[in-house]
Amino acid sequence: MRPQEDRKRVMIEGVRPEIDGGRYPIKRTVGEKVEVEADIFADSHDVLSAVLLYRMEGGSSQWTEAPMEFLVNDRWKGSFVVNEIGRYVCTLQAWVDHFQTWQRDLAKKVDAGQDVSMDLLAGAGIIKDAISQAPGADAKRLEEWAADLKSPQGLKDKVRLALDEELKALMARYPDRRFATTYEKKLMVVVDRTKARYSAWYEMFPRSCADEAGRHGTFKDCEARLPYIAQMGFDVLYLAPIHPIGRTHRKGRNNSPAAGPDDPGSPWAIGSKEGGHKAVHPRLGTLEEFRHLVIKAEEQGMEVAIDLAFQCTPDHPYVEKRPEWFHWKPDGTIQYAENPPKKYEDIYPLNFETEQWKDLWEELKSIVLFWLDQGVQIFRVDNPHTKPFVFWEWLINEIKKDYPGVIFLAEAFTRPKVMYRLAKLGFTQSYTYFAWRNTKWEITQYFTELYHGEVREFFRPNLWPNTPDILTEYLQMGGRAAFMVRLALAATLSANYGIYGPAFELCENRPKEFGSEEYLDSEKYEIRNWDIESPDSLKDLIGRVNRIRRENPALQSDWSLRFHPVDNEQIICYSKNTEDFSNIVLVIVNLDPHHTHSGWLELPISDWGLEPIRPYQVHDLLSDARYLWHGSRNYVEINPQVVPAHIFRLRRRIRTERDFDYYM
Amino acid sequence: MRPQEDRKRVMIEGVRPEIDGGRYPIKRTVGEKVEVEADIFADSHDVLSAVLLYRMEGGSSQWTEAPMEFLVNDRWKGSFVVNEIGRYVCTLQAWVDHFQTWQRDLAKKVDAGQDVSMDLLAGAGIIKDAISQAPGADAKRLEEWAADLKSPQGLKDKVRLALDEELKALMARYPDRRFATTYEKKLMVVVDRTKARYSAWYEMFPRSCADEAGRHGTFKDCEARLPYIAQMGFDVLYLAPIHPIGRTHRKGRNNSPAAGPDDPGSPWAIGSKEGGHKAVHPRLGTLEEFRHLVIKAEEQGMEVAIDLAFQCTPDHPYVEKRPEWFHWKPDGTIQYAENPPKKYEDIYPLNFETEQWKDLWEELKSIVLFWLDQGVQIFRVDNPHTKPFVFWEWLINEIKKDYPGVIFLAEAFTRPKVMYRLAKLGFTQSYTYFAWRNTKWEITQYFTELYHGEVREFFRPNLWPNTPDILTEYLQMGGRAAFMVRLALAATLSANYGIYGPAFELCENRPKEFGSEEYLDSEKYEIRNWDIESPDSLKDLIGRVNRIRRENPALQSDWSLRFHPVDNEQIICYSKNTEDFSNIVLVIVNLDPHHTHSGWLELPISDWGLEPIRPYQVHDLLSDARYLWHGSRNYVEINPQVVPAHIFRLRRRIRTERDFDYYM
Repeated sequence: MRPQEDRKRVMIEGVRPEIDGGRYPIKRTVGEKVEVEADIFADSHDVLSAVLLYRMEGGSSQWTEAPMEFLVNDRWKGSFVVNEIGRYVCTLQAWVDHFQTWQRDLAKKVDAGQDVSMDLLAGAGIIKDAISQAPGADAKRLEEWAADLKSPQGLKDKVRLALDEELKALMARYPDRRFATTYEKKLMVVVDRTKARYSAWYEMFPRSCADEAGRHGTFKDCEARLPYIAQMGFDVLYLAPIHPIGRTHRKGRNNSPAAGPDDPGSPWAIGSKEGGHKAVHPRLGTLEEFRHLVIKAEEQGMEVAIDLAFQCTPDHPYVEKRPEWFHWKPDGTIQYAENPPKKYEDIYPLNFETEQWKDLWEELKSIVLFWLDQGVQIFRVDNPHTKPFVFWEWLINEIKKDYPGVIFLAEAFTRPKVMYRLAKLGFTQSYTYFAWRNTKWEITQYFTELYHGEVREFFRPNLWPNTPDILTEYLQMGGRAAFMVRLALAATLSANYGIYGPAFELCENRPKEFGSEEYLDSEKYEIRNWDIESPDSLKDLIGRVNRIRRENPALQSDWSLRFHPVDNEQIICYSKNTEDFSNIVLVIVNLDPHHTHSGWLELPISDWGLEPIRPYQVHDLLSDARYLWHGSRNYVEINPQVVPAHIFRLRRRIRTERDFDYYM
Repeated sequence: MRPQEDRKRVMIEGVRPEIDGGRYPIKRTVGEKVEVEADIFADSHDVLSAVLLYRMEGGSSQWTEAPMEFLVNDRWKGSFVVNEIGRYVCTLQAWVDHFQTWQRDLAKKVDAGQDVSMDLLAGAGIIKDAISQAPGADAKRLEEWAADLKSPQGLKDKVRLALDEELKALMARYPDRRFATTYEKKLMVVVDRTKARYSAWYEMFPRSCADEAGRHGTFKDCEARLPYIAQMGFDVLYLAPIHPIGRTHRKGRNNSPAAGPDDPGSPWAIGSKEGGHKAVHPRLGTLEEFRHLVIKAEEQGMEVAIDLAFQCTPDHPYVEKRPEWFHWKPDGTIQYAENPPKKYEDIYPLNFETEQWKDLWEELKSIVLFWLDQGVQIFRVDNPHTKPFVFWEWLINEIKKDYPGVIFLAEAFTRPKVMYRLAKLGFTQSYTYFAWRNTKWEITQYFTELYHGEVREFFRPNLWPNTPDILTEYLQMGGRAAFMVRLALAATLSANYGIYGPAFELCENRPKEFGSEEYLDSEKYEIRNWDIESPDSLKDLIGRVNRIRRENPALQSDWSLRFHPVDNEQIICYSKNTEDFSNIVLVIVNLDPHHTHSGWLELPISDWGLEPIRPYQVHDLLSDARYLWHGSRNYVEINPQVVPAHIFRLRRRIRTERDFDYYM
């Protein structure tokens, strides 16, 4: 049999956004809007009303309501703004609005010249039913209205009263929701701090920060490097792992199988007799010095992010203390990592199928808590796709319960569905395929998928033109111009981006060998000494790009991205804007690092509120040049040997006095 | 905290078909296949295995398993056939297959020339673990295998044994599913009898079946009419309502507000002192005569369907017995139906918001049970969209629990989302917008939506070129050719279709007035006497079309429908085929009922297994003409004054002997 009450006539379905049937939350940052659409309909032809209900999880159990409005074809829309970090829940409610139905039908009958005296009485009845819900003053007002509709005064006056907008507004406050339908799911919204949406990352190896060649860098050296990074305008400083490095099977320079006595090993080979994931490498300094670095970075506008690489060397303390957390071979040794035929003898993967999985999970959580205690709030997670999804979902939720501002960046370069699942289950930001998307077609396809599909609700891209593992062919082949192209794209296509430096600003592009994306003399296996004051450095350009991002809110979020046609395959053109179009940024990049290209653009100027007959100004924020453009079709020519990109801010003319135009 | 067991590493998501997150069942008929796709993946790079689990609801609680296979991009697919009428449930299970992973990695290591002696021991261990699950003979075989892998024989021999396909097949029977993931939803499949998928309906007014003009037809007259309908090849005989008709506010001829003393009234104005929904109109005969008609129809291959119109006249017995089931006005009278400014004083709608809703629901259910007792198994439901969705979902499920073969056809001509929701909640078949889709573009768009989107999983179209309420402008204007066009389209675009006769076969096309879709002298308000032996009747053509449908299984289901390009907007071309392409039907219709049109078709002959260099035959099943065609591009010319359509069966050449070709 049916439930007790089945006089609910309204259906709610096709709710968007709703990730995997409501299984996963959508993501927002503080101050952003949550827009919800749904199909809402009932039998027959009655008028409906609908609201969004939302509240913070763990806060008051009272719902706040936001009205929904009818769009077209049974589709409704409503929205609310999330103002606090944490989790919101949201659902929908809709009901047959007998009062509005009555008003609509009354108007139709009046128009058709029908006798409506009976209808006016019926209306008085509906108003009377609402009175019990209304407080004093409103109750009194409704009483009067009901009495008027039943009074002996002229029919015409009563009809006017019945159709009055004030009555409609008053009745809307006290709808009869006895048979209201509440949507059966509660949709979740994870609200992060602004940096989850808008951040500029700088990755570096602390051990390479020493001033002089040949010395192992320290946290103190990192502190000395802070002004250099701050000047470039970054706000996240991500350090390659800072833990003790194993000795057994340590890799030598250029990943040679046997390390020399002075080879420092890979920082991702974590664990030695000096400690594991909660220790710092003795040559970098002490935990106290690390905390000092965190504070100093903060003073210069940067947060320190560290790496979570959940794997161990054979020398890691866990191997002795918790041998059951590893895979064992029939000969009684522990199984090293392999991806046949490749072997990684210096790494023991953790066995998440162990009987002791609960202890293992708790220990890994304690690592995150340990670093939170040291002041770290941002974690770049190494290869999360090689550990179980359920583990990450648990870990991230556990941490965010007490530390809702923590940011986890997923470094999963793998199949799309795996990357998306990691984002759904909780990772705040994600690495992408950006590094390998070079052509106009590829870039257009990829960012359309990321920003204009359901994916955007849970997957926040963080674009990296290079990483210690990725020196793309485009960068290898394209020289300095290629680095500028990829910088301009990364910093403007996404509000979150990062570079691995100083390799990036110094245009380091020597591969280990042809066909490889590994660096020659990679910092992963040796200490490098970088000439950061080189005159060829891109540091000033990077600084300018990051300042443009700071000064133009259009570049601080992603969903407004639109691509615009250019009649040259080597030139890509796109724009971003704020919701009110007060800030419009137009980016035009020559993707060919070798040749000058030109082309005609086609811009949607009427969408931007520009009149086709009046000129407008485009102000190149990179070169400070200004151009006066007319209409939707305009010409560009870009020489990659100068700067391969324009980042235009669109400036409208605000008034004309004789020959002088002013642009805002 | 997490559940007790979280070593499940496999994720299952993106399952299709899954209607509204599994809230509604998909539909199939007996013998059809259920194909399920899903994204299935785990962390890392292990090999996975997956199965579909399915069983009948209410039957054994044991799942039957069907293997799933990997497609591409983490997408998997499996299928099973439903052989019984009723409800099935289905879910998915997947696990990390350690044995297959081991076999794959072993092969890679062997290829790379690595030492695998340790791997062979590990493999023996995996095999040993499977033995506990295996029965006698298989256990013994596995024991031998494990022993062989550990034996002192040559490594090469052991590798060969380890990679043996027999071992793989044997191990596949006893996978280690301790950490298998079972999809959290149980998907439902409603399995109907074949007629739900493939049926030809004939609608008529029993009272117009008398041989001589002026007499009220009876069930006996209907019996006499059966051979005529059977000869046309219909298998469902749908009767306009057969209940007593109200007197109060009865409508006269051509829907005039006041009926004359001899006007019979509309059969949809149900209820008089002679009874309500469980009574038959006294002038049609007795209940016993009705049951006799049902049996006689069955003998001639037809099932009788009746109309469920849940509404009452002021004279219906319910008005006196259950006044609380109606809407009451302030003046103490019952509210008649209205759609302001239109009024329907002869109809009292039922009030589903009544306090007595439970009684009302039960009573309406008892009406269906009553007619099931009379031998009726098919119901055409009048305006279901004016009664609550929850009521229909309950009613249909209640009925189908005991009578799973019952068919409900929803007559809801309303907004698309309402129509789809009614189909989702349980209606077996649905009326469509077909009557108003006349151009090639409209037809192509509409049937692509119906057959190639998710809609097809729950919405089974039943196409009607005309109904007693719908005489389209196309039929009004296009003469006899228009009727032939619409017949050919309805009967071949959908495996379910129907006509309202004899108006249809006699090409009745006089509207009540210009701009109206109502018939002049509509049978809804008067008794008509039809000249069914008229030489202009389309009955023979209809008989031929229905025979073609019977003889060509391609036309007995819908999802194979494909449209093919023609370089003339007035000619539409499409095909249907059986899954194995043994039956291919190609339909070409000239949509312009006034002029001869010609054009070039573009056919996907290679998909049909035809070679571009060999001729093939198209056999027009309407005219019996045969044409020899070559390649994908062929010419047609159609004169609508003869027959405006070709229904070709494609015939392949099976062998050539000198100059003689044979086609199957």
